[in-house]
Amino acid sequence: MIRGRGRQMETTERKTEVIATAVMGYGTIGSGVAEILEKNREEIIRKTGRELRLKYVLDLRDFPGSPVEDKVVHDLAVIVNDPDVRIVVETMGGVHPAYEFVRDCLLAGKHVATSNKALVAACGTELLQIAREKQVNFMFEASTGGGIPVIRTMYRCLSGEKLQEITGILNGTTNYILTKMDRFGETFESALKEAQDLGYAERNPEADVEGHDTCRKLAILTAMATGKEVDYQDIPTEGITAVTDVDFKYAEKLGKSIKLLGSSRIEDGRVTAFVAPVMIGPENPLYSVSDVYNGIVIKGNMLGVSMLYGSGAGKLPTASAVVADMIEAAQFMDENIPLGWTDEKQSVEALDQAVFRYFVRIGESGENAVRQAESQMGPGESVKIDGMAEFAFLTGPMTETEFNRRKAALESQLGGKGTILQVIRAE
Amino acid sequence: MIRGRGRQMETTERKTEVIATAVMGYGTIGSGVAEILEKNREEIIRKTGRELRLKYVLDLRDFPGSPVEDKVVHDLAVIVNDPDVRIVVETMGGVHPAYEFVRDCLLAGKHVATSNKALVAACGTELLQIAREKQVNFMFEASTGGGIPVIRTMYRCLSGEKLQEITGILNGTTNYILTKMDRFGETFESALKEAQDLGYAERNPEADVEGHDTCRKLAILTAMATGKEVDYQDIPTEGITAVTDVDFKYAEKLGKSIKLLGSSRIEDGRVTAFVAPVMIGPENPLYSVSDVYNGIVIKGNMLGVSMLYGSGAGKLPTASAVVADMIEAAQFMDENIPLGWTDEKQSVEALDQAVFRYFVRIGESGENAVRQAESQMGPGESVKIDGMAEFAFLTGPMTETEFNRRKAALESQLGGKGTILQVIRAE
Repeated sequence: MIRGRGRQMETTERKTEVIATAVMGYGTIGSGVAEILEKNREEIIRKTGRELRLKYVLDLRDFPGSPVEDKVVHDLAVIVNDPDVRIVVETMGGVHPAYEFVRDCLLAGKHVATSNKALVAACGTELLQIAREKQVNFMFEASTGGGIPVIRTMYRCLSGEKLQEITGILNGTTNYILTKMDRFGETFESALKEAQDLGYAERNPEADVEGHDTCRKLAILTAMATGKEVDYQDIPTEGITAVTDVDFKYAEKLGKSIKLLGSSRIEDGRVTAFVAPVMIGPENPLYSVSDVYNGIVIKGNMLGVSMLYGSGAGKLPTASAVVADMIEAAQFMDENIPLGWTDEKQSVEALDQAVFRYFVRIGESGENAVRQAESQMGPGESVKIDGMAEFAFLTGPMTETEFNRRKAALESQLGGKGTILQVIRAE
Repeated sequence: MIRGRGRQMETTERKTEVIATAVMGYGTIGSGVAEILEKNREEIIRKTGRELRLKYVLDLRDFPGSPVEDKVVHDLAVIVNDPDVRIVVETMGGVHPAYEFVRDCLLAGKHVATSNKALVAACGTELLQIAREKQVNFMFEASTGGGIPVIRTMYRCLSGEKLQEITGILNGTTNYILTKMDRFGETFESALKEAQDLGYAERNPEADVEGHDTCRKLAILTAMATGKEVDYQDIPTEGITAVTDVDFKYAEKLGKSIKLLGSSRIEDGRVTAFVAPVMIGPENPLYSVSDVYNGIVIKGNMLGVSMLYGSGAGKLPTASAVVADMIEAAQFMDENIPLGWTDEKQSVEALDQAVFRYFVRIGESGENAVRQAESQMGPGESVKIDGMAEFAFLTGPMTETEFNRRKAALESQLGGKGTILQVIRAE
C-alpha cells in the first residue's frame, strides 16, 4: 500500500526524488551518459520530478582528474550490494562479462539500461525473463538505431498495430561508405579507409562491413515486432565488401542507389528476414538516408508506412537513448513494463520464396549476350556504360528460387560460370 | 491498496481485462477507430492484456446496417453516466461542442483521446488541467502528424533532451499541392483542383492552404517542447497561395524545392516560431518528404537531428494514433501521465531577429538590375530563366529586419514598388 500510494503522490506533487545510479563501462557511451545526466539535470527534473544521480562508475581503469574521479569502483559487488542504487547502465560492450554483470544487477532488483546490441541479441530473452521475475526493467533502446527511439516507439506507440515489415539502414559506418561510393565514385577500399581515418569505422571493420552489426539489430527489432525470440544466426546476412564503384555507375543510370538493408517481413506469424545490399530508388524513404545517419521504416497494417530517421551512432545520441531508458525506469520504479518479447521462439524462413528484382552484371558486351539475358531473365531493363566490355540487366520481380534457376540457365547459355560478374537485389 | 495491487497483478499475469469505450463522432476517423478495435483486437489483447470494447457511438445520425448500428446513442449523458465507460474518443472536430463534451467526460473521470487539433490548440491547457485534477488522461497523439507518433515520442523518448528546434511538414494537403507543382510544373490552382478532386483538399481549402492547420499543430508541438501554453494566434503564419509555378522553375535551377514548414526554435526559454513556405535543399531531411506524407524534424541538445516520417492524415493512420492513446490510457487507468504541458504562458518572439536566406524575384532583366540586386543584397546567387523578362536572387543569411531594409533600398533604387515580384524564405 505504501508503495502504491507513494507513486501516486509523486506523480501528482512532482517532488524531486533522488535516484542513485551506476554506470558500468566508462568508455564513449558511458561517459556520454554521465555528461548528459549532468548537463540536462534541470531538464530531467522539470519533466519527471526525479533526479538521476550518478553514484558509481565501474571500470578497470581509474580516471584521475575527470568529473567522475571519486565515483570510480573496480568491484561489481559495491554496486550490487548498495540498496541505494536502483538503476544501472551497462555500456561495456561484448557478451562477457556484460551478461554476468547485468544478470547480477537484475537479480539484485535493479533496473538495467544497456547500449550493447551483442548482449541483447544473444541474451535478451533470458535477461527480460529475469527482469519480469524481479519486477524491474531490462531496457535497450540504445542497442538499435543509436539515438533513434525505435524500441520505445514499437512498444509505446505501435502497440495497436499488426506490424508487417521493418526495413532499416541500421549501421552508420556502412552507410557512410556507400554514400561516399555513390556521391564521389570512390571504391569500397578507399571509402573504408576514409571512414577509418575519421573514426567511423574500426581498424577491424568486419562486424560492420560484413553486416553482422545490422543482423543483430534486425534480430532485436524483429523480436520486438513478433513478440518472440529471434536467433540472429538464422538471418541470412551479406555485407557490402563485394559492392564496387562500377555497380554504383549502373545504379546512377538506373536512378537508384545501393544501401545495406536489414529487413523483416511478417505475415501470418511467418517471418522472412535478410541483411544485404539492395538497389533502391527515390520512392523508398530510405533512399535519402545518407552518411552516418540511420533510417528505419516500419509498416503497420493500419498505420501504413512510417520512418524514423536520426543519428544511428555517436557518443551523445546513443547516450541520450540510454538516459531515456533510465528516465522511464525511474517512472516505473516498482513495475515491469511489458515489452511483448516472450521466450517463445520465432523461426525465420529461408529466402527461397522472397520476391526481389535483381541487378545482374554480365561480362560480355555483344548484342547476342544482351538478347540472351533478355530472353532468360524475362522483362527487364538493360543498361550499358560507354567503353565497358560488359552490361547490366535489371530483372522484374521474381522469387529467389526462380531467379537462381534463370541465372543458371543464362550462365550455361553464355558459356559457363564467370560471365555473371555481380548480382545485387533490387526494388 | 486494492487498486495498487490489482494493477501489479494485471501486469504480471496478463489476464484479459475488458475496458468499455465510446466514440463521439462517427465520421472518417471515428469509424476508423471502430474498425481498428475490431480488426486488431487479438493484437491489442496480446500486447496489453486488455481488450478495448466499443460500447457506444455518439452521433446525430443513425447508422442502420453498419457494424455499430446497435451502439449508436444521441445523448452524451448516456456515456457520461455509464461508469463502465472508462475511455472516450472524440473525433467530432471543431471547438464546440467538442470542448463541452470532452470536459464533461473528463469531469466524470473518463480518459479522453482526441484527433481534434482545433480543440487541443484552443483548449489543451484547460483540458489537461482537468485531467490532472481527475487523475485521468487527455491525449491527443492524432491531433498532430496523423499517424506519426510525435507527441508520445516527445514525452516518452525525448524527456532527457533539451529540445532546440521542431520543424515540420505538418499538412498533407499543401504538401501534395507543392509536390505536384514541383514535379509537374503545375500552377497552384490546377494542383489545388487535383487535390480537391482526389478528396485530399476540402471544397473550402482555406484552413490548409493558408497555413492555419499547420499553425495549430505547430502550437501543440511547441507547447509539448517548452512545457508551456502557446497561443497559436501568436505564430506568424503564411500559406502557399502566393507560391507560383515560376518560383518552382527557379527552385529547380537552385537545386531546391519549396515546402510549407512550421518551425519553432527554442533558446534559453525564448521561442521564435513561424509557418511559411521555405525553399529548402536536399541536405534538409524534409526535402524528400513528398505527396501527402508529413515529416517532423526534432533537434535535441544531445540527440542532434532526428526525423519522424509518415502518413500525416488519412482514416486508418489517424485512427491508429487514437487507438495508441486508448491503449496507453488502458495501461495507466488510475494515473495521470505527466506530459509536461503546464498552464504557464510561453510568449512567441517576433521574427525580426530570425535569420533566413531570401529568394527574391525581380521584374527587370537588364544587367543593371542584376548589379543593383547584387550590390544591395550582398553576396548571393542570381539566376535567370531563358526567355523571361525577370531574374531571381538568393541572398546569404540575414535577419528579417536587415532583409527588409535592404529590400526597401533595392526597390527604391529599381524605381519603386512592384519591381519585386516575389519573396520566399530559404535555407
